[in-house]
Amino acid sequence: MTNHLIIGMPKEQIPTPSLILDLDIFEANLYAMAKLFTGQVKLRPHIKTHKCPVIAHLQVKAGAIGITCAKLSEAEVMVGHGITDILIANQVAGYGKAERLGALATRVDVKVAVDNPANVDDLDRGARMFGAQIGVVIEVNVGNDRCGTRSMEQTLELAKHIATKKGLIFKGLMGYEGHCVFTADKKERTGECLSANKILVDSAQMLRDNGFKVEIVSAGGTGTYDMSGIYPGITEVEAGSYVFMDSCYSGILGNDVFRPSLRLLATVISKPQPGLALIDAGMKSLTFEFGKPQPLLQGATLTGLSEEHGRLELTPEADTLQVGDLVEIWPTHGCTTVNLHDRYCVVKENRLVAVWEIACRGMSQ
Amino acid sequence: MTNHLIIGMPKEQIPTPSLILDLDIFEANLYAMAKLFTGQVKLRPHIKTHKCPVIAHLQVKAGAIGITCAKLSEAEVMVGHGITDILIANQVAGYGKAERLGALATRVDVKVAVDNPANVDDLDRGARMFGAQIGVVIEVNVGNDRCGTRSMEQTLELAKHIATKKGLIFKGLMGYEGHCVFTADKKERTGECLSANKILVDSAQMLRDNGFKVEIVSAGGTGTYDMSGIYPGITEVEAGSYVFMDSCYSGILGNDVFRPSLRLLATVISKPQPGLALIDAGMKSLTFEFGKPQPLLQGATLTGLSEEHGRLELTPEADTLQVGDLVEIWPTHGCTTVNLHDRYCVVKENRLVAVWEIACRGMSQ
Repeated sequence: MTNHLIIGMPKEQIPTPSLILDLDIFEANLYAMAKLFTGQVKLRPHIKTHKCPVIAHLQVKAGAIGITCAKLSEAEVMVGHGITDILIANQVAGYGKAERLGALATRVDVKVAVDNPANVDDLDRGARMFGAQIGVVIEVNVGNDRCGTRSMEQTLELAKHIATKKGLIFKGLMGYEGHCVFTADKKERTGECLSANKILVDSAQMLRDNGFKVEIVSAGGTGTYDMSGIYPGITEVEAGSYVFMDSCYSGILGNDVFRPSLRLLATVISKPQPGLALIDAGMKSLTFEFGKPQPLLQGATLTGLSEEHGRLELTPEADTLQVGDLVEIWPTHGCTTVNLHDRYCVVKENRLVAVWEIACRGMSQ
Repeated sequence: MTNHLIIGMPKEQIPTPSLILDLDIFEANLYAMAKLFTGQVKLRPHIKTHKCPVIAHLQVKAGAIGITCAKLSEAEVMVGHGITDILIANQVAGYGKAERLGALATRVDVKVAVDNPANVDDLDRGARMFGAQIGVVIEVNVGNDRCGTRSMEQTLELAKHIATKKGLIFKGLMGYEGHCVFTADKKERTGECLSANKILVDSAQMLRDNGFKVEIVSAGGTGTYDMSGIYPGITEVEAGSYVFMDSCYSGILGNDVFRPSLRLLATVISKPQPGLALIDAGMKSLTFEFGKPQPLLQGATLTGLSEEHGRLELTPEADTLQVGDLVEIWPTHGCTTVNLHDRYCVVKENRLVAVWEIACRGMSQ
């Protein structure tokens, strides 16, 4: 299939619905975050947000020590595109997965989160099948109550278990303070985040006291980069959403440091009555778990999403919209929105300057 | 990328998360619906549900007169896979779209919904560029209040306008009773549906009274196939979800005629505390606009979805789940769930018998 895109075309000629990435704003975000992590604490951005090898390489070139992935299949695609230092921040389990991870570890520096001894045994088997070594970090529950060890004792036992495995190298700890990245009040968010960081750093100290070398202590998202990123003992930060700044994160952080770079371009396909327009973007182009995304058009509100329709209710001032007119929508959640699309139309001064493949789209295995 | 699939492998070895299609149940659904449309009213199944050329061909082979698509790009992919009779049941508007539709019309019988005179002009231009003719059906609002003409007068005016266009052939009408397909009470649903059908059929009669040939009167979804499908004057029905029967439609229709054929296979990746398991499927593998999908496991409830995690809360009887165990999930909304995946793992007697590409995934343009 042709994608109907020609470098140099005006933005207005890009077929809709399409994801539009403003190159200047994106680059400003990229360098603004990189600048904050030139000291002891390193940036290992989470690529689940953008799922794009081009962006991953730009992040590494800007100073990131590697990338964070959510899934093995994301890591496989990124390795296929030349990325060589990866933390898979989730547990990898299930038939055939340990073998795939072991095979990957023969070629690149890959690390994976663990929280379970049987899973550790399985990964060790996968690594030894290839004579490789997989790096492992223990995921510690820091209050998010999802995966992760539930106590210092569990963390210590698991570290001791890992130490017996020839196919694994114990690298350190990770903890994701997902329960506080969306806390709106900054003071409250800071308090929650510091408590979470403390659990993680205390666990690292406990392991060191027990003779373990703890190289990695990984934490932080875009909502907490400036807290976890300066907490003594944290070694790397996993923030990723800063490249796009969806409306959810912008609502929490403001746009002083990072600005919104991602838009969905849509077209009005029906104008059936006064005050109402339908656009060609619905639930298959936009996600809404953090609220319905809003058009960048004074007087227009997105009030409904069918699979392939968006319902725009219009005040009289916006009611001049016609069939064929373009509307830009600001995603509420970049990470899931991107997972619906195959490419970014990268735009500079309203012209298409590049097309970047979202090569990890759908890579949930 | 390899997809790690080998025909003949046991279902338990399919990498997760993966969409699993039970071939026997799927085929039973396919033929059960086909059998109902061997008379005057024809089936033109909506492929937005499955987005899969293999399934489209099986539907046509079973008796469907063609397919319904939501988007131009879906139609382009289906034409590329050999489908030759397509109704695009949405308006097609925006830069370059009329040309693409005109080009398609040189090769196959393609029809598109219209509800706006300026859009009609644009489509006519696209068709004449190639010396082609695009079929058009007027979308009539039958109570769904989305797209569609709002009155008999509008419908008549638009038909007259279409008649002046050499690049277009007026084919008839379509109306989608989307406002009643999910009405739980069958009697109430029937009443709403018949009112909607009446608007459409009366509009067709009005056009015939004004000298127009009305070949197509298209309506109906899986929630109303047995109402619209027998309403005098309706010529074709667009039902599509019957092939999978997600839990939403099963809740409305029961499973006497059609049975659930689609599952998401997932793996437990963490079992951090009693009563809780995390699976490797979240919002990037499952949709939840019709409610959180539920595991087919007594005592397990999916209570939360992160991007790549599903949170299973377990009663004591289900608390034997271990890391690495498989869990099958019944999607609540097949159409949007399928749009997250690249292929169906087609299973018969618990072995992989085929891999069907979801070639129209992401085809929202």
